[in-house]
Amino acid sequence: MSPNTVATAAPWLGVPADHPFGIATLPYGVFTTTDLPDRRRIGVRIGDRVLDLRAAVEAAGAPAADLHPLVAGPTLAAMLAAAPSDWARLRAWITTQLGDDKARGLVEPFLLGCSEVTLLLPVEIGDYVDYYASAHHGSNVGKIFRPESPALPVNWKHLPIGYHGRSGTVVVTGTDFHRPSGQRKGPQDPAPVFGPSIRLDIEAELGYLVGGATRLGQRLSVDDAGSRLFGVVILNDWSARDIQAWEYVPLGPYLGKSFCTSISGWVTPLAALDAAHIELPRDGDDPEVLPYLRGTGTSPTGSGGTAYGLDVHVEVRVNGTVVARPEYRDMYWSPAQMLAHMTVNGASVRPGDLFGSGTISGPEKGQRGSLLELSWGGSEPFALDDGSSRTYLLDGDEVVMTAWAPGPGGSRVGLGEVAGRVLPTA
Amino acid sequence: MSPNTVATAAPWLGVPADHPFGIATLPYGVFTTTDLPDRRRIGVRIGDRVLDLRAAVEAAGAPAADLHPLVAGPTLAAMLAAAPSDWARLRAWITTQLGDDKARGLVEPFLLGCSEVTLLLPVEIGDYVDYYASAHHGSNVGKIFRPESPALPVNWKHLPIGYHGRSGTVVVTGTDFHRPSGQRKGPQDPAPVFGPSIRLDIEAELGYLVGGATRLGQRLSVDDAGSRLFGVVILNDWSARDIQAWEYVPLGPYLGKSFCTSISGWVTPLAALDAAHIELPRDGDDPEVLPYLRGTGTSPTGSGGTAYGLDVHVEVRVNGTVVARPEYRDMYWSPAQMLAHMTVNGASVRPGDLFGSGTISGPEKGQRGSLLELSWGGSEPFALDDGSSRTYLLDGDEVVMTAWAPGPGGSRVGLGEVAGRVLPTA
Repeated sequence: MSPNTVATAAPWLGVPADHPFGIATLPYGVFTTTDLPDRRRIGVRIGDRVLDLRAAVEAAGAPAADLHPLVAGPTLAAMLAAAPSDWARLRAWITTQLGDDKARGLVEPFLLGCSEVTLLLPVEIGDYVDYYASAHHGSNVGKIFRPESPALPVNWKHLPIGYHGRSGTVVVTGTDFHRPSGQRKGPQDPAPVFGPSIRLDIEAELGYLVGGATRLGQRLSVDDAGSRLFGVVILNDWSARDIQAWEYVPLGPYLGKSFCTSISGWVTPLAALDAAHIELPRDGDDPEVLPYLRGTGTSPTGSGGTAYGLDVHVEVRVNGTVVARPEYRDMYWSPAQMLAHMTVNGASVRPGDLFGSGTISGPEKGQRGSLLELSWGGSEPFALDDGSSRTYLLDGDEVVMTAWAPGPGGSRVGLGEVAGRVLPTA
Repeated sequence: MSPNTVATAAPWLGVPADHPFGIATLPYGVFTTTDLPDRRRIGVRIGDRVLDLRAAVEAAGAPAADLHPLVAGPTLAAMLAAAPSDWARLRAWITTQLGDDKARGLVEPFLLGCSEVTLLLPVEIGDYVDYYASAHHGSNVGKIFRPESPALPVNWKHLPIGYHGRSGTVVVTGTDFHRPSGQRKGPQDPAPVFGPSIRLDIEAELGYLVGGATRLGQRLSVDDAGSRLFGVVILNDWSARDIQAWEYVPLGPYLGKSFCTSISGWVTPLAALDAAHIELPRDGDDPEVLPYLRGTGTSPTGSGGTAYGLDVHVEVRVNGTVVARPEYRDMYWSPAQMLAHMTVNGASVRPGDLFGSGTISGPEKGQRGSLLELSWGGSEPFALDDGSSRTYLLDGDEVVMTAWAPGPGGSRVGLGEVAGRVLPTA
């Protein structure tokens, strides 16, 4: 059976056609169970269950033996190091097993309930880069932080602005963290003061896990870069705005960001988002981009073709209240453009490198992916359902971001969630 | 024999008392040999020879068995993950073996000539942070890049400014790299242009390898941070000034730096630099620093005590011509302050994290550690011994940085060298 003809999970699995983790999604994750807390395993999610991939591949024997190296390790490292053709073979095999009632005997013994597993960081992150790809976010931040300057920096529409973040503090969903301390200085303060951040914020982003390695000096075109995008996570770039504002000139954000970055535990393969490709938003005033930022079929301003955007819908909840519904379709720069830009100077990439899109914000107030924007620099508190209001986060606040995209035939592809809670300063 | 009483290498080794790699130095490195190119081993340098540490420890048998885990691996990872007390025990054992003629039979079989080994990256770098700790460099760059603003940013004397760099492109001495390409835009250009960098530069720095791990939310005091500094390397932070100038507002340097960062292959333990401790340069106008940036015995401005500076002398050669002799004693922020600052927001560290000091520049023109400063933004070419002149680097140029510090009893502690050559754009 060709994987292309499989539209729904095998009936015995009992996964409704509109389930966000149907057979068109199939995200990978790394998990443990309470009875084997030290045994990290790779799983693939189907409905509300998780298939232990190594066990299933081993049970399948010789016909799946070539897939074994991809799924045998304790993380996704080997899978990410493999070729895109390997990713396709693995996904096709899983699709066949989970789409065919005849494979029930093979896979059923290795299915666990989602509530039985604990998700871990899917791979050790190599380098982590954070971009700034939303023009709406960039303009809003510019108006708030740099009111005397043009809202968007002059370079903004010529290159995807990015910077390196701290890979060692990228954590998986469900990891709580302590409110960071640091220096801050208001315009009226004679000298900086030290203490817990009083402007602790979020940034709703998508993150991209890079597959394969390149050599020092090797560039990836937009087309090549697109084929190296292994999968997508939801990413919360926690930010301490007061620390950031005092430190970031001239070398960029550092301690205002490096204390914690959270990602979802399920990694959605780019292959699951084929039905979500869209043209990037451009208007007649946008400048032509340089050729290295254009892919096959891309217009002079960088839209369309292999430099596609993604129609992903995001929801941001603070203590259960939806505070924003950012639309990823509003992002100016595409993931393939961001990866091509990362390598245009000859910088090498490693499997497990991660880059974030930057805050996803749209033109409407309810589409702003940071509290900085939602509260307009802290000047406009917003209400939560419990009757309280917020500008920035309080200790104990929990932030949950979820996302989904259109799948084939009107289905939904769920991207899972990234959750984290603010603990008091340690 | 106590290691404290050993002042010189054992006579049979034939290491002159004034050799920069005498028994007071003893740096660690990772090497291969041409006959065993896949067998990475840890070595310690003595004179012009390298002791294969694992082999020597294994030959020593039971008395050294507890040192075996520190030296058995293919990199310094296990050594860096160990406790400072383990570092001291290992160094004491090596000092005893190489200081005592009676140990000749044990160690001599495992000594190789320096010319027989190829040095490799000593450890996989975790996170790489680059600081900006020289007031002279900061002022010079400010005057060149931001002539309309104060030379030093207003935050500069309150915190060590830093940013994350790309750990995956940190390479060992002797690794050549291709000139990076990217976008640049002069003030008169109507739009950015793409091409090989025309302002390829160097930055002479020291780099510090961090030992041990901390938990998310854990802070290191200046005193604690000092004990986590495992060793020092010479670091060349290659920089493409034209790419950097166009991209760095507002989120800091990215592609202007990420293409390559070179470090020396020999890692000098901080313990070898005890005789090089100095007070940090401060004057009466300098502000008090916040308490978290003060160590035991440190003055309100942050100088002295455990926040010590280092009296390291650096030489920078371009194609053999000495173009600068920066003095590390001029650095404003100490390594322990920089590491304490890195963790004050709760960011965790991993063994193998690396941070650079930032360009080492002094008050004199001949002490400037970057070509940007030596040529004053490209406006003042300087001469090389072959009769040619430079502002920035040409293809084929080789840059070699060396360094040394005072050792005990008037000896010299050599820090080795970091060398690299510019290849044409790939």
